[in-house]
Amino acid sequence: MNSPHSFWAIGPGHMAWLREVFPALEFRTAADEELPTALAAAEVYFGWRFEEGWLPLAPHLKWIATPAAGTDHLPARQIAAFGSVLTRSYGFHAQPMAEHAMGMILAFSRGLLASSRLQRTRLWWKDDLAGEFIDLAGATMMIVGCGSIGTHLAGMGRAFDMQVLGVRRTMPHATQNGIEWIPASHWRQALPGADVVVNLLPATPDTAGAFDASTFAAFKPGSVFVNLGRGTTVDHSALLDALESRRLRGVGLDVTDPRPLPRRDRLRRHPRVLLTPKTAVFSHAYMDGAVRFFADNLHSYVSGRPLRGAVDEPIPDRMEGIR
Amino acid sequence: MNSPHSFWAIGPGHMAWLREVFPALEFRTAADEELPTALAAAEVYFGWRFEEGWLPLAPHLKWIATPAAGTDHLPARQIAAFGSVLTRSYGFHAQPMAEHAMGMILAFSRGLLASSRLQRTRLWWKDDLAGEFIDLAGATMMIVGCGSIGTHLAGMGRAFDMQVLGVRRTMPHATQNGIEWIPASHWRQALPGADVVVNLLPATPDTAGAFDASTFAAFKPGSVFVNLGRGTTVDHSALLDALESRRLRGVGLDVTDPRPLPRRDRLRRHPRVLLTPKTAVFSHAYMDGAVRFFADNLHSYVSGRPLRGAVDEPIPDRMEGIR
Repeated sequence: MNSPHSFWAIGPGHMAWLREVFPALEFRTAADEELPTALAAAEVYFGWRFEEGWLPLAPHLKWIATPAAGTDHLPARQIAAFGSVLTRSYGFHAQPMAEHAMGMILAFSRGLLASSRLQRTRLWWKDDLAGEFIDLAGATMMIVGCGSIGTHLAGMGRAFDMQVLGVRRTMPHATQNGIEWIPASHWRQALPGADVVVNLLPATPDTAGAFDASTFAAFKPGSVFVNLGRGTTVDHSALLDALESRRLRGVGLDVTDPRPLPRRDRLRRHPRVLLTPKTAVFSHAYMDGAVRFFADNLHSYVSGRPLRGAVDEPIPDRMEGIR
Repeated sequence: MNSPHSFWAIGPGHMAWLREVFPALEFRTAADEELPTALAAAEVYFGWRFEEGWLPLAPHLKWIATPAAGTDHLPARQIAAFGSVLTRSYGFHAQPMAEHAMGMILAFSRGLLASSRLQRTRLWWKDDLAGEFIDLAGATMMIVGCGSIGTHLAGMGRAFDMQVLGVRRTMPHATQNGIEWIPASHWRQALPGADVVVNLLPATPDTAGAFDASTFAAFKPGSVFVNLGRGTTVDHSALLDALESRRLRGVGLDVTDPRPLPRRDRLRRHPRVLLTPKTAVFSHAYMDGAVRFFADNLHSYVSGRPLRGAVDEPIPDRMEGIR
């Protein structure tokens, strides 16, 4: 649970809180060299890293929990074969990711990225920016893969007087944060009405390349596209074409495929592309959320209830049926 | 009422609407060369420009209305001496300005400006950004000169789960958009609690240099400062010192004094300064708002009631007593 960044490291406060909430359990932290000993006694493991070679050291290990949202970096298959459960963490990413999405949108809707470049070389550049903005008030934001993160983002969009379209496979019964729900089967038909499109799709066979040339062809000219989902859902060549033709006013990408992008990738130097290196989840409250999620699951574990975030649990609704 | 930018030009739709709302009045538009003739008959003038030399051409002119928020560029004294009323326009700037302020804040709170630079040269720059963000959720935004624009911005801040402090001379009786009001006499004492400070002060003798070295010394280390008010309210030398000492994480300026900044001004090239050239008011809805404001005033004019925005009307509350 260590990290060079304090917001990703467990702190003494977290440990004290866990020990107070679970007085009957024993919590140990271990440096790398202590792992063989510590794992020999462990029934539950909570940490960023877990390596396949550690499994033989851990005869009693029943549950491996990661504070990360994804488990791509963990040996999920081997853990399952070993008979342990692997859980990811979720539910506390909405706040930083929604802030990040709004920041990326406003960087283009207010011409800020363009202005930051021009401020260095031009004496006065007001006219240069006259075509570099859109009003968010009255504009439409479509959120594709609209789960808890998208719902949080929708609340912000409504505070900007935006109309918000949410795309997911099944319609919720009640409206949330003013979202107008669009069934996944019809989302491409609704694209021409969107001034801003936020992609929160996860990587599934269904979503690979969902944003391809035919999808971008349906975008409203001059719209803003933001991807905080997964890089594999976007065809980068089609994205570049849509930028060149000005179909897209600006593009914000927190995820790319491949990651990182090659040094000479054209997206890196495009003046209307803003790249962030998977930092949309950066939050000083991250570990608070991860420890709380872990503690909730630990209550379930102790009382024999199913764990949330198990990697073999059914894929959440927002993740399917986008095609 | 012409402009190279459509959002600052009056359109046929506006003219048709005015003629419909005021069927008893005659509306004329005039190219520059037609001005002498047109002004000879005019009782009311609505336009961006007005020159002192036009007054003798306009013996019947009682009222000059500008769609601009300020009247610095107009011969106010000569118009008053001529016996005409000069009105500015307001009330429709809050939407674009609040969007602009949130965009500037998020550019720093999410490390977007830093990332846009690093994306060009660094293969992977996630660790570089680990110190370049703050969570807006739970953070405090202080709005100095909190009138209608600040109140609109406060609503957005609340949607980001921010605490919002509003500074103005007199406390409103009711709370608005969750603002906690701070009397102008105490605003510097409240500064250490603010993660984000938005300056919306107008230029008055009271506000000149309000943000000086002693003010910045009271800022919370690592805070974000945004100025959408007037350039004269900020001591740029003190601002640069506060940036260098990292007291300020980032600075967004839509206004500067002088304007434009000299080509070699250090603020232009500072990596944590975002300049926009008075574009916070850019809005495609600008002329809709300006024509509506003018029409409201025209109703008053026709029925002999006082006009809103007359340049000699008492200064609105937010503008005074900041010292």
